[in-house]
Amino acid sequence: MSVSFVQGLENVVVSETEISFLDTDVEKIVIRGQDLIELSSTKRYLDIVYLLLEGELPDESKRLMLQNDLSEKQTIPKELLQVFSLFSKDYHPMDAQRTGVSILANYDSYIGDNSAAMNKQRAYKLLAQLPTLTANSYRILNNQEVISPLNDLSYSANFLYMITGDIPSEEEEIIFDKSLLLYSEHEMPNSTFTARVIASTNADLYSALTGAVGSLKGNLHGGANEAVMYLLNEAGNVKQFEKILYEKLQNKEKIMGFGHRVYMKKMDPRAQIMKESLKSLCNHDGDDTLLEMCEAGETIMREEKGLFPNLDYYAAPVYWKLNIPIPLYTPIFYCSRAAGLSAHVIEQHDNNRIFRPRVNYIGKQY
Amino acid sequence: MSVSFVQGLENVVVSETEISFLDTDVEKIVIRGQDLIELSSTKRYLDIVYLLLEGELPDESKRLMLQNDLSEKQTIPKELLQVFSLFSKDYHPMDAQRTGVSILANYDSYIGDNSAAMNKQRAYKLLAQLPTLTANSYRILNNQEVISPLNDLSYSANFLYMITGDIPSEEEEIIFDKSLLLYSEHEMPNSTFTARVIASTNADLYSALTGAVGSLKGNLHGGANEAVMYLLNEAGNVKQFEKILYEKLQNKEKIMGFGHRVYMKKMDPRAQIMKESLKSLCNHDGDDTLLEMCEAGETIMREEKGLFPNLDYYAAPVYWKLNIPIPLYTPIFYCSRAAGLSAHVIEQHDNNRIFRPRVNYIGKQY
Ligand SMILES: CC(C)(COP(=O)(O)OP(=O)(O)OC[C@H]1O[C@@H](n2cnc3c(N)ncnc32)[C@H](O)[C@@H]1OP(=O)(O)O)[C@@H](O)C(=O)NCCC(=O)NCCS
Ligand SMILES: CC(C)(COP(=O)(O)OP(=O)(O)OC[C@H]1O[C@@H](n2cnc3c(N)ncnc32)[C@H](O)[C@@H]1OP(=O)(O)O)[C@@H](O)C(=O)NCCC(=O)NCCS
Repeated sequence: MSVSFVQGLENVVVSETEISFLDTDVEKIVIRGQDLIELSSTKRYLDIVYLLLEGELPDESKRLMLQNDLSEKQTIPKELLQVFSLFSKDYHPMDAQRTGVSILANYDSYIGDNSAAMNKQRAYKLLAQLPTLTANSYRILNNQEVISPLNDLSYSANFLYMITGDIPSEEEEIIFDKSLLLYSEHEMPNSTFTARVIASTNADLYSALTGAVGSLKGNLHGGANEAVMYLLNEAGNVKQFEKILYEKLQNKEKIMGFGHRVYMKKMDPRAQIMKESLKSLCNHDGDDTLLEMCEAGETIMREEKGLFPNLDYYAAPVYWKLNIPIPLYTPIFYCSRAAGLSAHVIEQHDNNRIFRPRVNYIGKQY
Repeated sequence: MSVSFVQGLENVVVSETEISFLDTDVEKIVIRGQDLIELSSTKRYLDIVYLLLEGELPDESKRLMLQNDLSEKQTIPKELLQVFSLFSKDYHPMDAQRTGVSILANYDSYIGDNSAAMNKQRAYKLLAQLPTLTANSYRILNNQEVISPLNDLSYSANFLYMITGDIPSEEEEIIFDKSLLLYSEHEMPNSTFTARVIASTNADLYSALTGAVGSLKGNLHGGANEAVMYLLNEAGNVKQFEKILYEKLQNKEKIMGFGHRVYMKKMDPRAQIMKESLKSLCNHDGDDTLLEMCEAGETIMREEKGLFPNLDYYAAPVYWKLNIPIPLYTPIFYCSRAAGLSAHVIEQHDNNRIFRPRVNYIGKQY
């Protein structure tokens, strides 16, 4: 038997969904009928969370209720902190997050109940706890003091505060929030697919979302934002960055932060927005180096490969300017994406058939 | 846009593989060119592990080397035991396993290296540690004493010993080993697909195998063996079992342990072998009740639905007769399958393209 197949399931439809769609014809990131890029100029991350999980945008009072609800739930079990303290410094916070989400399953007394109502409750609790878990796993692994959430800050301001230890300025809060908004949901990338595949066995939401952490860790997916920042730092200036890029291209290496299965030869529209954020952060501190490096990289990749930046390319220097430690870039991506992932698990459980594909056997004959 | 697609990727080829293939035409479970069913009459689980990871069957000395190698590596970090002791009794050992595999990543200093050589080393270590981890997580959660591996027992005898606390008879050892052999690899079921999807982002083997634990937990997949045993116990005798089955069929409920995406309307050949094992265990202890119940269930499902038992249906009563606590049935399946999963991760990393499919958007218009 030898069957033709598409490697990486490129362009293969695997699911129906009401959640989101990358409509490249009209250049929209459709989330439940709305364009994420348009929403990003007036809405906040929690609006999108609500949109994803409830199917419509919240009015002012509903958004406030959501904010309060998450504030109330953001403490994490003390045993989780004990677990992180058992491990060594070089444990990547993405590994800690994978372990942490897995452990949270233990605190759910209704774990066997995959109904949409229960899954939604679970999702909100997880979204409340993830920033606390993520910031503190990093803190513990780096011998910093455990930090408690500040309930009177907004979701995003508090998240950034727990990471840096400083209450962010309004500009910082808004830019960080925008990054979360842009990361929240993006149709059927690898991590979302992972979550749906796992959920399709009737496994619980934690199992699905634990798998998704693992997926996001890879540098072809979420891990790209960290890889971009290490590269920018390694270079340090425009000339050196250009030199490194040319060398890598020569060696046929992939440059992290460029390319996208769906956008192909167009710029990821989310990247453009993060680029604007980078500009304003550079304006603010008067140091344009990272912006200039990124733009130089953009030019080279466009001219040499016809490739364009994705969100991770510009999220990386933005996070750097926000004083976020590099190993937290991908975990932050995950925290945000947990909203979209949860919506997909709910949808999968509600109309399920187990994913069980076939192979093209090219092994030893028999 | 509305595109036709196959729900659950039924019959969709997602990958090339040299590892295994369910050839329903000739009724073989092909593992690297050999038929698993044939192998099961002369070979042991570790032979199949070697076959999966090295591509050929070991000779006697190589199998002995593998046995010794695994014996040497089977101790698990003491922090893992501490982690399990932090959690409550009703934590399912499958959740503990998911957390445990995730944590083991922390002990791998070469975690960024996805080469086949490193992955293979990782896989052997994991296969050595999984029985210790699995048995002891259950023990700790149930206030039993932690047990240490006995190095002079065979892999399977030691595994069963750590579960029950008793050194198994030769018959018990051989039947348990056969169950591991049959569970070791089975082409592209959901958990294997999960592992490959995750690995395709360049995420590490632990990330991939952690995701697979989650997948296997669902009752449409590995969780079925536990569900079968709970049902058999609930019924207690043939009459009651038949009554329950008819009721469930009436209510259009699925009966766990029946049906298979690939075998469809034929018996899973692995189930037949486990049925033989059940027979000999029944012969031995003189109690045929479980066998009679299972056979009655087989008849009903064949006549009413044209459905046949899968491996989980007969593995369940066999594990019961071996005095294995029910919550360990799926974790044991996972321990065995870790061999096949690792082979697939190695293959994925060696010839990779990221899985990134598309969707059929049926949500709100825009
Ligand atoms: C995103 C990505 C995984 C999409 O993968 P894909 O659809 O499978 O695309 P392919 O890897 O098949 O790439 C197609 C071609 O473009 C090249 N290419 C794609 N992305 C590239 C990159 N970032 N740098 C250099 N070349 C790249 C490939 O080498 C390939 O060239 P070839 O046809 O000469 O072999 C891929 O672009 C990539 O690896 N990017 C870098 C990682 C990254 O930024 N990930 C975050 C995504 S949001
Ligand atoms: C294994 C399994 C998941 C395969 O799933 P699948 O290929 O998607 O098959 P479907 O669920 O579409 O089933 C096809 C038909 O058979 C029926 N069916 C399949 N398995 C059934 C079962 N165990 N009990 C009752 N009916 C079953 C379905 O209800 C469906 O009937 P319909 O056409 O009237 O709606 C499925 O058979 C199942 O759920 N079995 C029970 C769980 C189990 O034992 N899993 C371990 C597998 S090794």
